[in-house]
Amino acid sequence: MIIVMQQNATKDDVQKIVAKIEHAGLKTHLSVGEEVTILGVIGDKSKLDIDAIAAETSVQKVVPITESYKLANKKFHPEPSRFAVKNTFIGPDNLAIMAGPCAVETEEQLMCIAKAVKKAGATILRGGAYKPRTSPYSFQGLEEEGLKYMKTASDETGLATICEVTSAHAVESAVKYVSMLQVGARNMQNFELLKEVGKTKLPVLLKRGLSATIDEWLNAAEYIMASGNPNVALCERGIRTYETSTRNTLDLSAVCVLKERTHLPVIVDPSHATGVRSYVEPLAKAAVACGADGLMIEVHNDPAHALSDGPQSLTFEQFDSVMEHIKPYAELSGRRI
Amino acid sequence: MIIVMQQNATKDDVQKIVAKIEHAGLKTHLSVGEEVTILGVIGDKSKLDIDAIAAETSVQKVVPITESYKLANKKFHPEPSRFAVKNTFIGPDNLAIMAGPCAVETEEQLMCIAKAVKKAGATILRGGAYKPRTSPYSFQGLEEEGLKYMKTASDETGLATICEVTSAHAVESAVKYVSMLQVGARNMQNFELLKEVGKTKLPVLLKRGLSATIDEWLNAAEYIMASGNPNVALCERGIRTYETSTRNTLDLSAVCVLKERTHLPVIVDPSHATGVRSYVEPLAKAAVACGADGLMIEVHNDPAHALSDGPQSLTFEQFDSVMEHIKPYAELSGRRI
Amino acid sequence: MIIVMQQNATKDDVQKIVAKIEHAGLKTHLSVGEEVTILGVIGDKSKLDIDAIAAETSVQKVVPITESYKLANKKFHPEPSRFAVKNTFIGPDNLAIMAGPCAVETEEQLMCIAKAVKKAGATILRGGAYKPRTSPYSFQGLEEEGLKYMKTASDETGLATICEVTSAHAVESAVKYVSMLQVGARNMQNFELLKEVGKTKLPVLLKRGLSATIDEWLNAAEYIMASGNPNVALCERGIRTYETSTRNTLDLSAVCVLKERTHLPVIVDPSHATGVRSYVEPLAKAAVACGADGLMIEVHNDPAHALSDGPQSLTFEQFDSVMEHIKPYAELSGRRI
Amino acid sequence: MIIVMQQNATKDDVQKIVAKIEHAGLKTHLSVGEEVTILGVIGDKSKLDIDAIAAETSVQKVVPITESYKLANKKFHPEPSRFAVKNTFIGPDNLAIMAGPCAVETEEQLMCIAKAVKKAGATILRGGAYKPRTSPYSFQGLEEEGLKYMKTASDETGLATICEVTSAHAVESAVKYVSMLQVGARNMQNFELLKEVGKTKLPVLLKRGLSATIDEWLNAAEYIMASGNPNVALCERGIRTYETSTRNTLDLSAVCVLKERTHLPVIVDPSHATGVRSYVEPLAKAAVACGADGLMIEVHNDPAHALSDGPQSLTFEQFDSVMEHIKPYAELSGRRI
Repeated sequence: MIIVMQQNATKDDVQKIVAKIEHAGLKTHLSVGEEVTILGVIGDKSKLDIDAIAAETSVQKVVPITESYKLANKKFHPEPSRFAVKNTFIGPDNLAIMAGPCAVETEEQLMCIAKAVKKAGATILRGGAYKPRTSPYSFQGLEEEGLKYMKTASDETGLATICEVTSAHAVESAVKYVSMLQVGARNMQNFELLKEVGKTKLPVLLKRGLSATIDEWLNAAEYIMASGNPNVALCERGIRTYETSTRNTLDLSAVCVLKERTHLPVIVDPSHATGVRSYVEPLAKAAVACGADGLMIEVHNDPAHALSDGPQSLTFEQFDSVMEHIKPYAELSGRRI
Repeated sequence: MIIVMQQNATKDDVQKIVAKIEHAGLKTHLSVGEEVTILGVIGDKSKLDIDAIAAETSVQKVVPITESYKLANKKFHPEPSRFAVKNTFIGPDNLAIMAGPCAVETEEQLMCIAKAVKKAGATILRGGAYKPRTSPYSFQGLEEEGLKYMKTASDETGLATICEVTSAHAVESAVKYVSMLQVGARNMQNFELLKEVGKTKLPVLLKRGLSATIDEWLNAAEYIMASGNPNVALCERGIRTYETSTRNTLDLSAVCVLKERTHLPVIVDPSHATGVRSYVEPLAKAAVACGADGLMIEVHNDPAHALSDGPQSLTFEQFDSVMEHIKPYAELSGRRI
Repeated sequence: MIIVMQQNATKDDVQKIVAKIEHAGLKTHLSVGEEVTILGVIGDKSKLDIDAIAAETSVQKVVPITESYKLANKKFHPEPSRFAVKNTFIGPDNLAIMAGPCAVETEEQLMCIAKAVKKAGATILRGGAYKPRTSPYSFQGLEEEGLKYMKTASDETGLATICEVTSAHAVESAVKYVSMLQVGARNMQNFELLKEVGKTKLPVLLKRGLSATIDEWLNAAEYIMASGNPNVALCERGIRTYETSTRNTLDLSAVCVLKERTHLPVIVDPSHATGVRSYVEPLAKAAVACGADGLMIEVHNDPAHALSDGPQSLTFEQFDSVMEHIKPYAELSGRRI
Repeated sequence: MIIVMQQNATKDDVQKIVAKIEHAGLKTHLSVGEEVTILGVIGDKSKLDIDAIAAETSVQKVVPITESYKLANKKFHPEPSRFAVKNTFIGPDNLAIMAGPCAVETEEQLMCIAKAVKKAGATILRGGAYKPRTSPYSFQGLEEEGLKYMKTASDETGLATICEVTSAHAVESAVKYVSMLQVGARNMQNFELLKEVGKTKLPVLLKRGLSATIDEWLNAAEYIMASGNPNVALCERGIRTYETSTRNTLDLSAVCVLKERTHLPVIVDPSHATGVRSYVEPLAKAAVACGADGLMIEVHNDPAHALSDGPQSLTFEQFDSVMEHIKPYAELSGRRI
């Protein structure tokens, strides 16, 4: 951590800050420049009240150098993580394919989709039972009923399942029926929810917030891990930018950055990122090419009658084709599919 | 609502869409252009499955024309809203001043701050008992203990109080102790929480999400109102942009936009928006000048020892000065302070 | 300047960097932490090839501490700048009002607008003769003919005039006819153009680029100043964000930041920032309230027939009203209008 | 084009707008809804003054439906474009590789790099002679001297060459020495420069502006094409977002969007987009996987002594490795390299 003093800070001001830091058991290195004085801080920053130092009027700014996340940090766990989801797994050597409808609508619909995506090669069935929707007047999901259909589909097909949870109450229900929990983009910094999923034993897919920095995202993962659950995968699903040609801007550089900073697996969701069916295949290929550990893709038996996110859902034929076309990319990147 | 057909859509494709819309009891107006065919849709869109139409392969895009929020919409409630918060109120003619520490730390601290902000002219004491923090290792708030201090401070000074809630459990506690609930930026689209505060009888301050559009924000207010609680105020607190000189970019145009679209009161928080103490006064003046119904300002007895957000907190002297200096601006805009 | 070494950097790596810096005549302060080693660099950074250091594989990142702009920097020129524009001036104590049409259309139109804005209290007539338009098929301006009308309007009314220049050729023409040059947002980093206006003796209004940081903006001003022209004013005109309710997001915090970092005057353009006529007055008031040295406002005799930017142009009556209503705000901020 | 009337617009207001449009020789379709009245406009919009209509007080907004670019539009030229650059070409079936230093420094440096990139498989040598730099105190390029070195390198190795131009004057020089011109991100909307390169016979690489929408970018290409030069390639090089882990955010969705909207070839520059050497290879693969027609990659004989952009430049060994590793991706996408 670097502390940059105000231009007009006196020796006494500097001494006061030094005393504060050393009082917390850390060391400082003083560097007096022509225009500015800076202080390097050495030691365990968790013992230090950083905001209090930044609040001193003699301090211009505090520049963090090391990361605040520990459990998610690759520095302390250089090997990539790998964990089971029912009978499959997420991690190196594997390309996890999560596919299914945005929202669970009926048992028949879900079963029909489950069979189709399994046949095409998916290993995890996705389906939403609790839908966070912008307007209170839109379809909000089947809730526990939807979870039951997920369980039935899993039992019949053998697929693992993943479902978004939006409250402590939903977590309580979901753990009874599905193989993996998802925290959605809008809840990435719903810290109470992160703690709740952290207390379960199910693996968690943590979607990136609409405008979350990579560091905030890793700190959100840290919340789950610090609550006792080490099995977290991160899902890039597009960030909010000024560009309106796509629903969000898929940030594939984030895959590269994450691979450098964390040992957690990274999944890419080209369906939600773009909101456009025809962009799913090329961006799925790109995601695999730059190192993603898996894909999340929306598939629907009848997109034009989907209750949610129809425009981006693939038909069965389209999904078959995507699976066929990404196979050689998975091979090139040394992953089984 | 306007439906733009694909360039290669056939007459049959168009007819299929028209049939779908008319089947839902709405009317269409067909407009066949040289390059493109568009359909205007007339009637109650809530009867229509818009996503299903957008999902048709013959449809290029759907352009919404009317807003999806109704209760928050100025079209249907042209008069500005006004509601009581304990013994004061938020609404036209008044400039509501919410002031206090970011986080409640001790009873003494809170009481000391409460007296100081009251003396300077604040009417609502702010103070956080549940703190959403980026890192799980930062101070997370005193929880119910903090709420009790808020109640004591309110009882002693007569100030109304506002506290952020971050879960259904926190709502349950807070309603026993404070006068107004706050939903923070990170929870703006935590729809389960919105429904919970919507079920209470306390007024709610809904902060804008870090990258929420104004329409998403009004839809979030609609969640609260549709759950039975009409007393919602909106708080602009800066949006996330590429600019790093300030913590966020305060969007004062949003005040103007909101005044055109909704009857709900608008509060501005220059402390969180900028993260810099010296920018609070000029932006508070600007907020009042462009029509805000109130201000939320962080004040601390000892900013350099604040457990949260010290760098942007004002000292008592600074807050006195801000209050003194914004008075003539309040008068110019026809508001009591 | 702080150099953060890679976690795995050896003592030799560090020594190599230290040698490089000292060879350039600067000093270093070494700070060896538990996780990371950092180097503080002291002295004149212009002697150092910073990119070359950042490119070393042993270096993780370089954190600049001091600013690269010198002539525009308030540190070295604490007094606010002030300069004449024909018979008026821009600087402290004054509120400069630049008003007029987006594009000069005819001599009659311009004369009519010039008289109206003068009567209402404007001191500088704005009018575009070279229009940078998104599409090559839109009206591109009257060029030199338009400049001549500007001169005639100035001669008849006594108003100073300002016109955007878009090329070296336009600069050559404009200096013959107008009192002040404008560099538009799209050309903020057209460094060749900055050097050209820097060689003239006319004051320059430098608009902020659509997504320029404040530091990039000040460096662009530095280009003009380093070419010999000290009379630069900065114009905040909205930045590009994800929000679509307004054309751009007016960043009034930038006024506060600039007032801290530079001695150059700051103008605010609420017309281009929002693109909406009814938002001009409230945001003009807000701009004055937070410290702007002037306003740029679009006024047209017949907005519905304007060849450019009609939706945001004020009618004469509206402009009279804005001028009337901002007067008390100018007085509060200690400025003549 | 759709015109949405204000809620309180009268029949007369609507009639006035209809008359205006029909007077320009276009047709209208009226659609009177419960809340709002809309007008569809049919015919050649270039005959219409759209801003004038948007400026009418009775008009709420104008929603464009068709694109303003024509020559760049895939609708009118469904086949992908293909054009020669000296002895190679850009277009389908080929993966154009542009490689070389950010800035030309000396003849020896350039020759050494030219030979190395040619050996590794590049076909176009990139090298900057006119460098747009944020600070006026940074190295600005060798100008015409640099162009001469480019010509020598081209003559000796047979490589085609590309160089950025930043002014009419630079264009005049560059056409004498290089095979292709580049317009940089900062000049994407320097319309005078676009017209200048449009008048030359050399192919042009148009980089996307830092915060340019895809539509603005295609309109910028239209400026070049409308000036007589049909040989334009577009280069995605990252957009500005709030994320700071990478210099910019590479928008690979833009490749997919462009492939749908335009026949012009699309190049991707992972070096400038990320600013980080280790992200170049994975994102180069991703670019090829999602359909790019070429790559632009920075290579330097000694990145730690590069005068510009060292941190992202590859060494010869790294570039060899990238070329080796992207070959199978080029094959998968049906392109020669």
